[in-house]
Order: sequence, then structure tokens, then C-alpha cells
Amino acid sequence: MAPQRFEPRDPDWERKVRESFASQKVMRTLGAELVSISPGRCDIRLPCRDDLTQQHGFIQAGIVSSIADNAGGYAGFSLMPANASVLAVEFKINFLAPAAGDYLLAVAEVLKPGKTLFITRAEVYAYRDGKPVHCAAMQQTLMNVALENGGK
Amino acid sequence: MAPQRFEPRDPDWERKVRESFASQKVMRTLGAELVSISPGRCDIRLPCRDDLTQQHGFIQAGIVSSIADNAGGYAGFSLMPANASVLAVEFKINFLAPAAGDYLLAVAEVLKPGKTLFITRAEVYAYRDGKPVHCAAMQQTLMNVALENGGK
Amino acid sequence: MAPQRFEPRDPDWERKVRESFASQKVMRTLGAELVSISPGRCDIRLPCRDDLTQQHGFIQAGIVSSIADNAGGYAGFSLMPANASVLAVEFKINFLAPAAGDYLLAVAEVLKPGKTLFITRAEVYAYRDGKPVHCAAMQQTLMNVALENGGK
Amino acid sequence: MAPQRFEPRDPDWERKVRESFASQKVMRTLGAELVSISPGRCDIRLPCRDDLTQQHGFIQAGIVSSIADNAGGYAGFSLMPANASVLAVEFKINFLAPAAGDYLLAVAEVLKPGKTLFITRAEVYAYRDGKPVHCAAMQQTLMNVALENGGK
Repeated sequence: MAPQRFEPRDPDWERKVRESFASQKVMRTLGAELVSISPGRCDIRLPCRDDLTQQHGFIQAGIVSSIADNAGGYAGFSLMPANASVLAVEFKINFLAPAAGDYLLAVAEVLKPGKTLFITRAEVYAYRDGKPVHCAAMQQTLMNVALENGGK
Repeated sequence: MAPQRFEPRDPDWERKVRESFASQKVMRTLGAELVSISPGRCDIRLPCRDDLTQQHGFIQAGIVSSIADNAGGYAGFSLMPANASVLAVEFKINFLAPAAGDYLLAVAEVLKPGKTLFITRAEVYAYRDGKPVHCAAMQQTLMNVALENGGK
Repeated sequence: MAPQRFEPRDPDWERKVRESFASQKVMRTLGAELVSISPGRCDIRLPCRDDLTQQHGFIQAGIVSSIADNAGGYAGFSLMPANASVLAVEFKINFLAPAAGDYLLAVAEVLKPGKTLFITRAEVYAYRDGKPVHCAAMQQTLMNVALENGGK
Repeated sequence: MAPQRFEPRDPDWERKVRESFASQKVMRTLGAELVSISPGRCDIRLPCRDDLTQQHGFIQAGIVSSIADNAGGYAGFSLMPANASVLAVEFKINFLAPAAGDYLLAVAEVLKPGKTLFITRAEVYAYRDGKPVHCAAMQQTLMNVALENGGK
């Protein structure tokens, strides 16, 4: 199927996403950067730093999950109304190949935007010498918690 | 059901697990420590450092996953034969409450030890003033990749 | 951890669950029966009928999922307020052993009751000659959709 | 990304898949049919029969899972070597919209073919008056169990 095109519900969606990402101290700690954001899509890049590796020298699964989860979260957040607040309800991630190379790129897209819940998918690619290897595949459920807390 | 009791297949299981954990640079970067290990069970603790937080000030979902995944991985590894090599095939994690407090404790147990695959579960608790809040629940599939690579 | 004890929010919880189960035509088609229900817990039994088997003669994974999903759904529904309406948001299930024997028993418990979302787990056991084998493990997210539809 | 093209390892892949599907009694019980099969892809169709519905009149989540799991399983099996035997290790499925209409179509593709493990994804669409609604999204891990049992 062709990728879906989404209409943002908040005209200020881009500023909102960029400010939220910038406020995530964990992204700075890991060295991750927001590569691009568009309505319903978000790409995050993580250099393969040695201090993020597990026992085999690959980027550890949780760190791979960290950028996949965040890319999914901001793909969804970009489509939420003003005053929304996004949290991950859950995700599932398969590891397809070693997360090793020069950097990782997490590419997330919204599968289904809802009122309360948003479903996303993310792929993580490990780039070495400019060539990607598909190293993880995630499926995620997000919630606009502002709804539950009395916002809209 | 009462927790299962498992017999390790490698008499050297404890040293093997502790050495592998110590070789994970990412655990040092995050400040995580191996609290305890027994056959089929592993507990990992992570202080709630400010530089691991997301936009709401909670420990980011991927970081929570990082210790849950690792606790599951070592719970499984403790039951694998000598020469085994463990990788996470996949996991699914639900976030039940904000990961905030003094520290997080991931407690993992093997649900089913197999020949090639091991299934585990982990709970993550956020401790504040000594009181735990159940903040995440994971279910994971591990593989002894040494089998596929010609080892045993 | 000891199993949690839950307080139902609807005094009429038992009648509500039994009526809903009875209205599921699919359960009759599969031959499943509601074995027991208590606040936050539900057990469903399915005889291992030959016409529900896959190519190896085991009960097919989707059918195993069918009773696990339903047991989780009613475990959650038993704790929801009056006028609630329950739908599965998602689930993840691992298959641990062949689903074969005399009958399957799905045993589900609520892990976390929320306002909008409920998280559950279910185990499926295959009984042969009265002895259970743990054949599947599920983790599930439910939603009280009445909230989203303007109910409570 | 463009869909991948896969080379089958067994020249007899199509006969093998069709025979295995035909031997699944559960598919006949549910009324499911194999619509198409190609290397790494499988489509299964299920008429929305009233006797497969849950309390809201939608096809029950486990039944939706049943065709998604099977489509994924045969997508993977089509790429396995001769003498392979396929089992689902686990899957995760999100429900996006009510499974209601004239029929459901599960469309599965292999994401990553491995030696022992295969990762797949499936989408389920509910068709009414010829128009599809995306009603479920699955991610699955399969295993060639012949390897573990001493086959190849």
C-alpha cells in the first residue's frame, strides 16, 4: 500500500514536536538527534557509540528500542491536537540483525491515528559506509493522556 | 502458580553471567547494576538519573526496556549450556505507571527454557522511599545463537 | 508477588460478564465455555476438537489466542464500571508447547486496571489425562471504549 | 521501501504450501480460503460469518488472529527449504477497526527470512461492498522446527 498522507490537527505541530524532543534529556545523553519530522512520520538518528554496546559490541536492544519508541511517539504526537500529551502504552520489537555500524536510523510512521490511541510502526536501520541493514522492526501503541486527564 | 525451579546446564553459570554483564559498556553508561542472579532469574537496578528522562521527567521507555531486556536475557543465559551465546529475538513491553522515583528494579524470570529459544517475563518496579510501583511488564523471546552458528 | 485482589466497580459485574460471554456466538462455534469468573480473573475451557487443528494436529495458534484473548477481556471487563464496553486494543502471545491434549484452559488475570486501559496476562494450559502443560503466554491491552464514545 | 523479492529455497514451495493449508482442518471449520501464495507472501480470505462473532457482532479477535497468523506462517513457509516444518513462536497483533463487513483479507509478507527464524508482518482488511478497512496489524516470529528436530 502507498504510504498514507495525514492532516495535522494542530497547526503548530512542528514546533511542538521539536520542543518536546529537545526537552528529552535522555536523547542528549545517548547522542540521538531528530533528523526529520513530518505529519505522521519521524526519523531519529543515533551514532553507534562504543559506550552504548552490549557484550557482543552491538548497540544494546534497549537503546535500539529507545530511538524506535521515540520516533514512533513523535510520529504520533505530530498528529495529535493542541494540548495533547503523548505516552507509550506498549510496544513490541523484533531484532533482525546486529545493530552495528556507523549510526542507526529509526524511521517511524503512524499506522492508525485515533482519538485516544495511535498505532505506529518503526524500522531501525544500521548504516555502515552509507548502506543500510534493517536491524529492528517495532509496532507500538500510543495514548493521548491529556484526554484521560481532562484535557482534550 | 508457584515459581518454577530450574537446574542450570552449565556449572559455571554464575561466573559466565557476571562476566557478560560486566562487559556491557551500556550498563555502565546508564548506571545499571546486577543486583542478583540465580538459575532462571535476574534482577537489575537502575538509579533514576535526571539525564535519562523524557519530556515529562520520567525515565524514558527505551531505558526502562533496556534493563528489562537485559534482566530477561541474563535470566535465560543462566540456564543455557556452556558455549551458549544469547541474543534477544524480540520483546513486548507494556508501560503501567510513570517510571519515576529513586531507582528502578527489573525482575526477570524464565517462563520456558527450550533448546534454541527461551521465553522470559520481566516486571519493572519504580521505588520511591522504599515503596515499589509496578511500572512495566515485559514478555521476551531469546535465542541461543551459538546453536545456529555451529556451536552447542 | 502474591496475586492482587481487586474490588469490582460495578456490583452487577458477574451477571454482566456471563451475559456478554453467552452472547458471543464464536464461543459456541468453537465449543468454549466460561469455567469461572471472579473480579479481575477469568478462566475459559476449550475441548481439543479435531476440527480446530492445524497441519500438525495441534489446536491452531489463532484458536488458542481466541480463548486467551477472551479470558483476558472478561478478566478486565469484570472490573469495569457499569455501562463499560470492552475491546482488545492488542495482544502478544508466545507459544510454548503444542496445544494438544483433552482440553485447553485459558487463565487470565488483570495486571493493571486503569481508567481507560486495562492490562492483562493469560496462560493457556493443555490438559491431557488431568495433567497441564503450559502451552501459551499472552500479554494484552484492553480499552473501555464507552469512555471514548461518550459513556463512562 | 519497495517490497522485497525473495528466492524460494525449495522448488516445490507452492505445492508444499497448498498441501499444508489444505490439511488444516481449522481453516475449513472457519471457512477460510487460501487466496494467493507467492514466495514470501500469502493472502487468506475469511467470509464474515455470523457464527464467528463476539458480543458486538464483529469477528472475534482470535479469529482475526487465526487468519493473520496462518497467512504469516505460509508466507514464511514458502521460503523455507525442503523438509522444513513451520511453527509460530509468537505474534503481536493490534486491532485498528471493527472486523465487520462481507469478508476479511489477511495479507502477510516476510520481513526477514533467516536460517532458523523468520519474521513476518500481516495486515487484515475488512471488506464491505468492495472497500477495504484496515482492521488489524500483526508482527510475527516463526521457527523452522525441523532444524531443532534434526532435520534441515
